[in-house]
Amino acid sequence: MSDNTILIKDAFILNRQKIQSLLIKNDLICEISDEIDESGVDKIIDAKGKILLPGFINTHTHLSMTLFRGLADDLSLDSWLNDHIWPMEANLNGEYCYIGALLGAVELIKSGTTTFSDMYFYMEDVARAVDEAGIRAVLSYGMIDFGDAEKREAEIKENLTLFENCNGMADGRIKVFFGPHSPYTASEELLIKVRELADEYNMGIHIHVSETQKEINDISAEKGLRPFEYLDKIGFLGPDVVAAHSVWLSDEEIEIIKKNDVKISHNPCSNMKLASGIAPVSKLIENDICVSIGTDGASSNNNLDLIEELKTASLLQKVSTLDPKVLTSDEAIEMATIKGAEALGIDDEVGSIEVGKKADIILIDTDSANMVPDSTNLSSNIIYSANGSNVDTTICNGKILMENKKLTVLDEQAIYDKARQAIKELKEAI
Amino acid sequence: MSDNTILIKDAFILNRQKIQSLLIKNDLICEISDEIDESGVDKIIDAKGKILLPGFINTHTHLSMTLFRGLADDLSLDSWLNDHIWPMEANLNGEYCYIGALLGAVELIKSGTTTFSDMYFYMEDVARAVDEAGIRAVLSYGMIDFGDAEKREAEIKENLTLFENCNGMADGRIKVFFGPHSPYTASEELLIKVRELADEYNMGIHIHVSETQKEINDISAEKGLRPFEYLDKIGFLGPDVVAAHSVWLSDEEIEIIKKNDVKISHNPCSNMKLASGIAPVSKLIENDICVSIGTDGASSNNNLDLIEELKTASLLQKVSTLDPKVLTSDEAIEMATIKGAEALGIDDEVGSIEVGKKADIILIDTDSANMVPDSTNLSSNIIYSANGSNVDTTICNGKILMENKKLTVLDEQAIYDKARQAIKELKEAI
Repeated sequence: MSDNTILIKDAFILNRQKIQSLLIKNDLICEISDEIDESGVDKIIDAKGKILLPGFINTHTHLSMTLFRGLADDLSLDSWLNDHIWPMEANLNGEYCYIGALLGAVELIKSGTTTFSDMYFYMEDVARAVDEAGIRAVLSYGMIDFGDAEKREAEIKENLTLFENCNGMADGRIKVFFGPHSPYTASEELLIKVRELADEYNMGIHIHVSETQKEINDISAEKGLRPFEYLDKIGFLGPDVVAAHSVWLSDEEIEIIKKNDVKISHNPCSNMKLASGIAPVSKLIENDICVSIGTDGASSNNNLDLIEELKTASLLQKVSTLDPKVLTSDEAIEMATIKGAEALGIDDEVGSIEVGKKADIILIDTDSANMVPDSTNLSSNIIYSANGSNVDTTICNGKILMENKKLTVLDEQAIYDKARQAIKELKEAI
Repeated sequence: MSDNTILIKDAFILNRQKIQSLLIKNDLICEISDEIDESGVDKIIDAKGKILLPGFINTHTHLSMTLFRGLADDLSLDSWLNDHIWPMEANLNGEYCYIGALLGAVELIKSGTTTFSDMYFYMEDVARAVDEAGIRAVLSYGMIDFGDAEKREAEIKENLTLFENCNGMADGRIKVFFGPHSPYTASEELLIKVRELADEYNMGIHIHVSETQKEINDISAEKGLRPFEYLDKIGFLGPDVVAAHSVWLSDEEIEIIKKNDVKISHNPCSNMKLASGIAPVSKLIENDICVSIGTDGASSNNNLDLIEELKTASLLQKVSTLDPKVLTSDEAIEMATIKGAEALGIDDEVGSIEVGKKADIILIDTDSANMVPDSTNLSSNIIYSANGSNVDTTICNGKILMENKKLTVLDEQAIYDKARQAIKELKEAI
């Protein structure tokens, strides 16, 4: 098979702060320079007036829950879960999760995200959607045992089966992590077993930690320790752990996170919408802790737009610390690119624009009402002025998934129709 | 001249919670019903799958400052103003302000705002842009005297000249308010004089109040009173006053605001980005105070997207009160529609979809990746899932300004080119 080549001409390459061209050969970035020979190139993209940056990385979501967008809002977490989300989840099946994941994938591609890290159920069906959509994913099965030994075995088996069936599939675009749900839904035995198996299989771990004050109180009451103290004590933590939320942290816990090189997935919109609290992100960054960004599920956000998430993250840190200099637009861009890749342990492959890395690339159009004039530092235009709709082109693993805002792989209208039918059936089933 | 009619067919009319059609005759909404006779209608808009609501009202901005988008970010307020904004403003002229206002108008129309309330300089040039753009505006000249009697006379004259020349222009789409800049830049004499003249001319008043802690400290030191206490004492307050920001409020000041029926313009993105603080909006709403929404200038936001502003407002209240039930999506929609109209004293004309009101109408497309499926309450899709790019059609005063996301009146590309040239010249002039 001959090589497939794409030349992106005259883009403003954000991390180089200059206009250059970039050549993709198959799945890789193979050249970046002022002039690249066009002869024999299969496809040329004119990127004049466009900003080129790595595809965004969303390190915490539940993609199939895109079906539950706007199902219930403006409620306490308890009522939202008990009265609305859990009753719907009781009737989910693989097909619904597949459709929900496809719907989410359309939104990810349209808003410039090429990699997401997911935790949910029916994950082989999510993998099927990822394969079709052409995006990159880290998938984990949400394991919950509530201390039940039989359930624990079954949950571990489910996550290991996912690993065996899906790790490395879709041309290597899919990796599988363990997904122990949280320290309050997964028993100490489960967490210890996951740590052993993660080391044995060289798998990462995706977990919710310290999302709400209630969680801190409950774990403190049960274990006599705060969540990260408890996880540290049982030897669960390590550089392969991505802790989503991490809202309520003591200084001692920040030390524990740093010592163990735990990666954080910050989810500001969800934390604000559910009134969970404000994570001390600028303090974490000051401590050289790897903080990435995630949207959480669309049912508590209610979208998957990482640009909006980054603006919210930055503004929330500024106002909560009363310091406008914290979480700059440059730092925000890093959270959604290289820090995301580091969090997921794939920074040798993605997260920056460099020769030899996978061609996960987006172009952002500056010729839009909300982007004129160019800011002095173009990362400001992206973080503070843009939203996901300004993304013009999305490429993952060297394949164009969207060009000039038109999807090239997925049939969005068909997916919208299926998603509407799915939620209609799920609502009727209650 | 014969009547001009537009029929909007089969829209989901948000405030009626049902699908109906709406007929516009000239500048007015003249019928809303299940079936409207199409014969003789000049223009039919098929609104199937679209949500119809009033054009948004942005009650605090500085439209010409759209030129300064991304000029300087991640800085303290002092450095941002002294080192970046003021040096640029020193070289402004009427033509630059006109171009900046046109650029802002493009963004307003594209994101569904049909009315804005502005305070800046060269306001007759802003009026010229409003006239051309076809939108609605309340314009005020930003009066600053710092206690200088001669300057005071000149500033008052400037604002009155604006009133004489522009109030009622553009088919009545332009109203003129007084714009005393703030209680720390306008002297007590100026504020008292403005109050007298506002009563005499029946003009509203647009002012910044209680934006930063420093302002509270400075005014308390000088006057022995907090800003709203001081303004109340000198008889400045009334139902015709729109106070932008209003971040730092004591319970006594909330009482004063309520007693005087002062209208608030809440600007969350600017308050967060400049680390000014979090306004107690849910408490104000609980007290039946009229709270509208504003973006402030694009230089401290950095866009004019009211949908984004409303989501930020809602999420910020939820997390700062730790109550997810406050500032619901329905309340957020009100802030940008009827509450904005009340704030500007134009609720007899705009701010709701009713027969007899001006035809200021927008359509939001639900057939987009971030809008599927329909939320249980469609205001949730608008506030929590959408952004300005989901606005499909914008009509002001019965005239279509954007249809299917294409501007019909302004030439956006020409405006972008002029804006880029203007900021280039302004940067070179420093």
